Amino acid sequence: MLKFQIKNTQKNARRGELETAHGTVQTPAFMPVGTVGTVKAMLPESVKQTGAEIILGNTYHLMLRPTAERVASFGGLHKFMNWNGPILTDSGGFQVMSLSSLRSINEDGVTFQSHINGAKHVLTPERSMEIQHLLDANITMAFDECVKFPSPKDVVKKSMERSMRWAQRSKDAFIDREGYGLFGIVQGGMHEDLRKESIKALTDIGFDGYAIGGLAVGEGQEIMFSVLDYTAPALPTDKPRYLMGVGRPSDIVGAVKRGVDMFDCVMPSRSGRTGQAFTSHGVLNIHNACHRDDHSPLDASCDCPCCKNYTRGYMHHLFKAGEILGSMLLTWHNIRFYQRLMQDIRTAIEENRFDSFHDDFMNKYQHDKKM
Amino acid sequence: MLKFQIKNTQKNARRGELETAHGTVQTPAFMPVGTVGTVKAMLPESVKQTGAEIILGNTYHLMLRPTAERVASFGGLHKFMNWNGPILTDSGGFQVMSLSSLRSINEDGVTFQSHINGAKHVLTPERSMEIQHLLDANITMAFDECVKFPSPKDVVKKSMERSMRWAQRSKDAFIDREGYGLFGIVQGGMHEDLRKESIKALTDIGFDGYAIGGLAVGEGQEIMFSVLDYTAPALPTDKPRYLMGVGRPSDIVGAVKRGVDMFDCVMPSRSGRTGQAFTSHGVLNIHNACHRDDHSPLDASCDCPCCKNYTRGYMHHLFKAGEILGSMLLTWHNIRFYQRLMQDIRTAIEENRFDSFHDDFMNKYQHDKKM
Repeated sequence: MLKFQIKNTQKNARRGELETAHGTVQTPAFMPVGTVGTVKAMLPESVKQTGAEIILGNTYHLMLRPTAERVASFGGLHKFMNWNGPILTDSGGFQVMSLSSLRSINEDGVTFQSHINGAKHVLTPERSMEIQHLLDANITMAFDECVKFPSPKDVVKKSMERSMRWAQRSKDAFIDREGYGLFGIVQGGMHEDLRKESIKALTDIGFDGYAIGGLAVGEGQEIMFSVLDYTAPALPTDKPRYLMGVGRPSDIVGAVKRGVDMFDCVMPSRSGRTGQAFTSHGVLNIHNACHRDDHSPLDASCDCPCCKNYTRGYMHHLFKAGEILGSMLLTWHNIRFYQRLMQDIRTAIEENRFDSFHDDFMNKYQHDKKM
Repeated sequence: MLKFQIKNTQKNARRGELETAHGTVQTPAFMPVGTVGTVKAMLPESVKQTGAEIILGNTYHLMLRPTAERVASFGGLHKFMNWNGPILTDSGGFQVMSLSSLRSINEDGVTFQSHINGAKHVLTPERSMEIQHLLDANITMAFDECVKFPSPKDVVKKSMERSMRWAQRSKDAFIDREGYGLFGIVQGGMHEDLRKESIKALTDIGFDGYAIGGLAVGEGQEIMFSVLDYTAPALPTDKPRYLMGVGRPSDIVGAVKRGVDMFDCVMPSRSGRTGQAFTSHGVLNIHNACHRDDHSPLDASCDCPCCKNYTRGYMHHLFKAGEILGSMLLTWHNIRFYQRLMQDIRTAIEENRFDSFHDDFMNKYQHDKKM
């Protein structure tokens, strides 16, 4: 059971507060991804310093290594990884589809081979609930099936219907506790009727929150927004809404406008390791030779340790030399960039000026242009 | 010009204080290696938190990338890398021999090809002094020639004699400033007469400190100690003594007993990235399966963030998963281990009980045994 409270709204945009057993999350919120028990290249206290209040862990990765049972023996994921804030875990469904090999899917669940050592594993709604319980996730995601995009409508429909049956099995298997909750996942691809059928099925079951799945799969921002336009307002107003795997800064601002409360994406952390920096002027590639003699920080408006203490020239040097410190500093900067964005969004909603914030941001940052 | 003061001695062991333009260094001191403008996988503030007061930078690496002139344009190495404490740079001589290809050496200096892009470079005593000045090193090392071990005595002798001529040229080219200094390097291999000739030549020139080069090249601890037995006491008592590239914990304790004040080695940082942990009970390999379910810290007596917040089981998981955080935490631990060792050494000398500290340590830790 999770407490969620809406504090302000401006049209569809919502400013809320989600209480968990490990602390409160101000929404709209962005969750850095800690795939395998670590937000890559970051100490957890640094993650907290960026302003992040909740992180995401991946069931698929953790069940394979170190295993959910082992994490439980260490007192759960919070203790294992030294993150005492809230944790959301995904159900494993999406990554079974994208990372494992030799999958077979039937009504019971998915059988697959580990991408690490080829060992055979089975994920069912019941096992996914058990794993997430062992991990001690504050927010457990229902186990769902993900079809590739694009797929024919009848395939999307059949998959959505199975996901809804799995959502019921997830709910039945979920062990509810104070400060812990279960989110259902809306499927139905880019089809309004299927999305609405999915929402009807999920709200009939009843969840602590509702995720929108099957987006950010290559459909493009315009289509994604059009799906959100009819999906988000159809969700219960008193529960948090989570857009899975999204996204770029402009995706987030546009989704908040459409009523979404929570986000996760590997983009800031992965970009931090590959040398892409998010700045208030757009995205820059620190590998570019133009930064070699640049004495200015990545982003003069940023208060992160990377921008306060280092030049673009030094960051360029670290990436050219393949130094770990480059990944450490740039990941920190990018996650801080995302958290500052979320803070700006929250303040704008509180001050009833989110519409103009949105329009200014989209004008300035649309296409997340490269510098 | 550097101020060095001996505060206590116990037999040959010395407890001193070295003043530089960027701060004071308590000796005996261990310098973490920051090869290319970063102590790998560490924020500089974390390096400082380990207790390290001075770090080492590598002239060879920095001259190739980002280049000394570029570092100077950023205000020197301290500003470039955000380390405001003292920095010692090596002369480039040793690494030209070990890392570059197609070397040709004559009386003037060394011509070599960059290991990065094959470009041709020349290092002479004068150019090495210029580079280290551009880097703004608090301690500049004289440019010397390094022969491989073992080499015939006449080869070692000729090389030592050339290094002494290069030491004079280094002294002549060095631009002296308050809080900056130049160290000469004693060569002469494993030959007492050559070592003493080298010391005579260097002390005739006069340096701010004296390094012992050409050790830790595969000769073994017993031979190294025997060279130190006759080399260290022959050095001026009022100047710091630096044993280059050393070493294992027991090497350091034994060298302090013989009168050495300063050390550097990649061992704690490199081991931190490969999964070797220094502990009060010996060296352990965190990859070993025996750590998988171990809920205890690496070293219960250690106060570093790795030991305070994480289990061996978690560290094992991070290394198995190839996570950057594993390198970050284990490097921190290892450097903290070395700095605690240096603090223990300094306290033992101050309290006039270094002899028994040495004997206890050697009994417990000799051979730096694997666990």
